[in-house]
This record gives sequence, C-alpha cells and structure tokens, in this order.
Amino acid sequence: MRFSPLLDELIKSLQILPSVGPKSAQRMAFALLERQRSGGRRLAHVLDEALEKIGHCRQCRTFTEEDICPLCANPKRAQSGQLCIVESPADVVAIEQTGQYLGRYFVLMGHLSPLDGVGPEELGLDKLEHWLGDEAFSELILATNPTVEGEATAYYIADIAKHHGVSVSRIAHGVPIGGELELVDGNTLSHSFMGRKHFDNS
Amino acid sequence: MRFSPLLDELIKSLQILPSVGPKSAQRMAFALLERQRSGGRRLAHVLDEALEKIGHCRQCRTFTEEDICPLCANPKRAQSGQLCIVESPADVVAIEQTGQYLGRYFVLMGHLSPLDGVGPEELGLDKLEHWLGDEAFSELILATNPTVEGEATAYYIADIAKHHGVSVSRIAHGVPIGGELELVDGNTLSHSFMGRKHFDNS
Ligand SMILES: [Zn+2]
Ligand SMILES: [Zn+2]
Repeated sequence: MRFSPLLDELIKSLQILPSVGPKSAQRMAFALLERQRSGGRRLAHVLDEALEKIGHCRQCRTFTEEDICPLCANPKRAQSGQLCIVESPADVVAIEQTGQYLGRYFVLMGHLSPLDGVGPEELGLDKLEHWLGDEAFSELILATNPTVEGEATAYYIADIAKHHGVSVSRIAHGVPIGGELELVDGNTLSHSFMGRKHFDNS
Repeated sequence: MRFSPLLDELIKSLQILPSVGPKSAQRMAFALLERQRSGGRRLAHVLDEALEKIGHCRQCRTFTEEDICPLCANPKRAQSGQLCIVESPADVVAIEQTGQYLGRYFVLMGHLSPLDGVGPEELGLDKLEHWLGDEAFSELILATNPTVEGEATAYYIADIAKHHGVSVSRIAHGVPIGGELELVDGNTLSHSFMGRKHFDNS
C-alpha cells in the first residue's frame, strides 16, 4: 500500500523539482495539505501562469513575460556599448547587484555541452551573431563560469566576436576577496598566479 | 533589480514548501521554465486538484480523497480488533510495509504540543473516544514517535483507553537492528536497557 492515488500523484509530480526525492516530496505534500492549503493553491496558480506567460527576451534571451525585457528596453543601457555574456538570468541579477556594470547582457541559458546536445544553436549564438552584426559594440565581456564548459564557451564566443571586430575581455578569476589562500582549490590558485598584476607600492 | 514580476512571484510562492529558501526556489523556478514546462503544468494541475479533493478519512483521519479510506473500508482489517495510533500517514505506510500488522489505524496528524496550540481536539482525540465507545477493541497499540511530545501524547491516549477498559501497549524502542551500540544516542541506549528482556540461551 502507498498513499491515496491523488496523494501518490502529487508526491510523484513534486519530484520533477530539482533535488527533490521521494522523501522530500512526501514531506512537501504533507506540509501543503496540513498547513499550506491557501499558499499551495496560490503556488499552483502562479506556476501555471508563469509557465504559460514567461518566455525569453527577444534580444538578450533572459526570462521575461514581455517581448523585450526591461533591461534591453532601457535606452541608457545601450550608451556604454558594452555587452556582457552570462550563462544564466541569475548571473544578470548578481552582476546588477554590484551596481558596477551599466551595459547590456546576453544570456546563454547554459554553456556548450556537446554530450548533452547543447551546441551553439541551443545557446542562441546565431542570435548573438546577428546582434553583433547589427550594432557596433565597444566591448564584449565574457562572464561565463570559470568551469571547463564555461571556458570553452567563452573561447567559442571570443572567436565570433573577433570575426566581427569587437574587442573582447574576460572577467578576472582568482582568490575571492576575504578568502583564505589555504582554503582555495589549486585550480583557482593557478588562475590567480597566471592572472597576477604588477603591484605598485610606490 | 530582481527578476521579472511573475518570475519573482513564482520564486516567492515556491518558498512555502518546507526547507525551500530563496536560492533553491530560484533553482526550481529556472529548472521548471527551462526543462520542465510540461511537468510543471502537470504539477500545477495535480497540486490544485489535490488541495481541492484530499481531505481526512472520517474514521482514522489519514489523508484520502474518499469519505472513508480503503484501510478503514476493508472489513478484514476490523477482525483483529487492534487499533494502532500513529502521528502521521507516513507512519501508516511504514508499518504497512512491514506486512506484520493487520489491524486498523488512527492517525493523529501530529502530537500534543500546547505551545503550538496543538491540544487533544486538534489531534481528533474526541473522535478517538467516540470510536473506543462504539467498538470493543482488543488492543490499542501506541506507535507515536519516541520523542518527548510523542511520549506525552502516548501517555495521554493511554489514559483515555484505560477509561474505556481497552488494553494498551507501546511499541518497543531500543538499538536499531544492525545498528552499532557506540553510534546510538544515550537516550535510546537507556531505553534499550530499561526495556531489556530475559535472554533464554538454554
Ligand atoms: Zn533582454
Ligand atoms: Zn481511514
């Protein structure tokens, strides 16, 4: 015996969520039924609406329920002539929170991963090429993740940019500010050495 | 800047799920939008239906979309005259999986917790009293959790049962089978000593 058919189905459906196994799904279903009936109804409604209405920005590919996202629609963002390439909409939010960058973004929604069937087309690189052809950008900033796939993706896009005569930069990687050297992994530490800069103590 | 209004609302709504904070909710929302659109629509639908239709069994209080759950409706389950008291529908499933118990259940949907406003009424103990008055049970098995609250709840229900002249037992607690003594907490170990039985090696 398991639970009632509908409860079994709810527990199964919840397991499409990332890192939710049978045990957590059961805990979620019970919590919803026992203490969160109105919150759960609201979640069901918002989820349905979000999946119906949220798509990708026609220009930068980030998630938005508009045709063009507010960042792309803001004319001030075009002034710097900079375009920052990131893997995920969460990266846009993280960079925006620093308040340091005032240009526009292009969101890959992933990275090159041939074994998973993710090639240039899946990352919208044809769209990026069109954009680079249409507009004269002053700089393309590659902010993909410092992973093997992120680096490969950055190299691939750098080639495209060079083809269009756009200057390309890659964000710096190294020991995090406030981090302790002995706790940093070897790969980061080598990056940190290779990317060292002249220390001007005059 | 955060995400789009609808995406922000989805991330917020997902946080009603237990142990889901802003970071996991964001990860869930992205996964649903990127890879699980149809599974997500299905989840929204099942969640809505479950919250509308699943209630509590009129007799044993477990979750069911019926008026009376299949276990209570099964006449064979009444034959033993046993009634097992558990805290949660998950406990029923766990006990059923042992295949050892053939009686019926009463599901408290919690335990006594005066500070959280959970008293006898919230656990349906009035319902249990009626049931004990209506039927002559041979044994009431207390299978609440071996926690302070579970024990207090077991004592409370044992009093009710005595009042109705029903024989009461408590499931045994001790070192789990296959467990190592040195890894077991002190409380379990004292229980295990107090509940020791004569070892017949003749
Ligand atoms: Zn955009
Ligand atoms: Zn029942």
